[in-house]
Amino acid sequence: MKLVQLQNVTFIEGGVCAAKGFRANGVQCGLAHKPLGEMDEANAAANNALPSAKKKNDLALIVADNDCNVAAVYTTNKVKGAPIIVTKEHIKDGKARAVIVNSVNANTCNPDGVEKATKMCQLAANTLGIDENDVVVASTGVIGQVLPIEPIANAMDELAGGLAYDGNKKALEAIMTTDTREKEIAVKFEMGGKNCTLGGMLKGSGMIHPNMATTLTFLTTDADISSEMIQAALVDTLNRVSVDGDTSTNDMVLIMASGAAGNSPVTSKDAEYAKFKHALYAVMMNLARLMARDGEGATKLIECAVRGAETGEIAEKVAKSIVGSSLIKAMIFGEDANAGRIFCALGYSDADFDISNVDVEMASDNGLVIQLGHKGNVVEFSEAIAKKILKEEEIKILVSLGNGEGKAIAWGCDLTYDYVKINGDYRS
Amino acid sequence: MKLVQLQNVTFIEGGVCAAKGFRANGVQCGLAHKPLGEMDEANAAANNALPSAKKKNDLALIVADNDCNVAAVYTTNKVKGAPIIVTKEHIKDGKARAVIVNSVNANTCNPDGVEKATKMCQLAANTLGIDENDVVVASTGVIGQVLPIEPIANAMDELAGGLAYDGNKKALEAIMTTDTREKEIAVKFEMGGKNCTLGGMLKGSGMIHPNMATTLTFLTTDADISSEMIQAALVDTLNRVSVDGDTSTNDMVLIMASGAAGNSPVTSKDAEYAKFKHALYAVMMNLARLMARDGEGATKLIECAVRGAETGEIAEKVAKSIVGSSLIKAMIFGEDANAGRIFCALGYSDADFDISNVDVEMASDNGLVIQLGHKGNVVEFSEAIAKKILKEEEIKILVSLGNGEGKAIAWGCDLTYDYVKINGDYRS
Repeated sequence: MKLVQLQNVTFIEGGVCAAKGFRANGVQCGLAHKPLGEMDEANAAANNALPSAKKKNDLALIVADNDCNVAAVYTTNKVKGAPIIVTKEHIKDGKARAVIVNSVNANTCNPDGVEKATKMCQLAANTLGIDENDVVVASTGVIGQVLPIEPIANAMDELAGGLAYDGNKKALEAIMTTDTREKEIAVKFEMGGKNCTLGGMLKGSGMIHPNMATTLTFLTTDADISSEMIQAALVDTLNRVSVDGDTSTNDMVLIMASGAAGNSPVTSKDAEYAKFKHALYAVMMNLARLMARDGEGATKLIECAVRGAETGEIAEKVAKSIVGSSLIKAMIFGEDANAGRIFCALGYSDADFDISNVDVEMASDNGLVIQLGHKGNVVEFSEAIAKKILKEEEIKILVSLGNGEGKAIAWGCDLTYDYVKINGDYRS
Repeated sequence: MKLVQLQNVTFIEGGVCAAKGFRANGVQCGLAHKPLGEMDEANAAANNALPSAKKKNDLALIVADNDCNVAAVYTTNKVKGAPIIVTKEHIKDGKARAVIVNSVNANTCNPDGVEKATKMCQLAANTLGIDENDVVVASTGVIGQVLPIEPIANAMDELAGGLAYDGNKKALEAIMTTDTREKEIAVKFEMGGKNCTLGGMLKGSGMIHPNMATTLTFLTTDADISSEMIQAALVDTLNRVSVDGDTSTNDMVLIMASGAAGNSPVTSKDAEYAKFKHALYAVMMNLARLMARDGEGATKLIECAVRGAETGEIAEKVAKSIVGSSLIKAMIFGEDANAGRIFCALGYSDADFDISNVDVEMASDNGLVIQLGHKGNVVEFSEAIAKKILKEEEIKILVSLGNGEGKAIAWGCDLTYDYVKINGDYRS
């Protein structure tokens, strides 16, 4: 899938290691995928039959050469993973040096979750010779299974020993779960007359209600920017980048800023801050598109752009209602232009607007556009052109509410047989 | 699937014709399933390949011997089908005599929708020799296709001529769309010393976001009760009966009361009113279960009973969050006891409670129960017993929020390959 280009930023390789001063690594420490209950024969067989995709790196480490300013945004789910509780505590001073992440086990809804998450930080800190309060911890995987700490402890020397300034792919592999594609983006941009870099990696799948599919995003930058300004840019950007579905228990987006680019520190919302935010949007927006497209079993990307809303919030609600509708997702998979389903999803979105002002169009990335609805009614349209658009990998649904200046974009994917297969499988 | 028995009501046959004084009929008038756009070769082929299930009765009539007190509840979708606009107007005096319903075409998002819905009432009124304002109209089917009135006009004589006191099945067939099972329930109960009957039919499928799957429910009773008290009982009952998913544009629940049972009229919330409400609950609750179980492609019924909530509204939100979670639905289809998914769905429900007080159990209809979570943590459980429960057709998820007296039950179905197949198909 093509990256969406923006002015004043250049895409580069390197992911979470693209910025100056960050090393990373990933290893397979062997966090087995075992159910909590009694291990009867059926379970043992199921474990042995695990796809080879699960036999992959499962533990990652990202380490900065020096202390970094950091900021993070966490899940809004009332059930919060233990790693989130520990990370919040460790970065309340706005500083961190390293991130340790495991997949396979979410370390959530366990009585000893905080203890184990703290232990992971201690193991990383001891091995790296840093303070445990400068270590961020994150986990993704099955909820409600006690996390075995031994495999992690045993792997620490190998993990730290292999840290490299080009270790981004190894770390990325370690955080992936149901992901079928690598998701990492990095950009170069100018700030305060200096060449800066911002990049990182994401694991997670856009899909209908990805309530188990934790989204983890780790970004690094060599820009010099305060943790308060990173936080502000992060919150603003996440409001503009919507992917279908709900929040998981362990969701986390973290940015570490090393300051190695040598720009004069950004500490207020000035013109330099705007450049940082623009670069962050370029990275997060493209990661969101990759994530939506990588929805479990997905074959197509759906982009819904809503304009003419009274507020941006209304536009966002409508856009998310459309990309989150399982009937629209199934219709995109089936390549059927059922305009009624779009109006219906518009109608049940929890947002206020006058349906009789609403226009709807469908478009492809290569310039084909047809009108499906006008002033709240479905209109006659060319089924032949609709079919052509629906054959594309990226389908755009354009909604005009005719009621103001608010706008928003959200991304989602189609709903396919494979979604059901993946999520009906044993303890995925 | 078994009916859930309640005290003081007896299930009987007859559906919408069970109560004294109601005739019904259904015919195939030939509302073709044609896309609005140009009829190219591919479309023509698709039309010709329509499954035989669509070549069924598509027009129904229900007629009371005398004027009835009526009440109705409609969709909350901002996009409202034209038939709803006309019906609201026709029953604002609390009276009606007949109901005309078509399937195949929803007559919604069309510029001439209200005109066509009014015309349907006029056709029925003229044929029956009654006032058009005493006719209720409803439609279900594809949104955004102009409704041809000729097939309906041409069928009126046959439709009215075939009206019978046992015509309930013919009418039921005419309102079904993606339904795979007939859904009709009737009960006998005592009120004011008289034998009363309440019964009716429902079309609709519980499923994830059934945004196109209009739910239509038509109930008839020979009880003598005012339209205000019918309305009150209906609103109270619908608050207790939740099925997963959102509201469609054309949803309607209508009750007609003929008074032929001869009880003294119920005009206030007295003990006799309570008996009516109980009978209504018995009918609606069982219809809801049938509807949830008939979710598109469904193989199992999921019942989520939440207790210990601070309010009934919180309990309902939690119960709906769980039966609406596509990951829980897929896990029930896959017969996998993934307790973490239940906690995750609890956590993102838009309801306020303390997760550290939450207990979760899973049970079968035949008495097997296992605890999956305690005080917010997943606990060890027997995978063998879990498997036995999950092999059943009806799975109960029992949640205790440990925070009050509020409770609610919601029903849903599993998510299967067939759901995707049905909804990915051409213009379903």
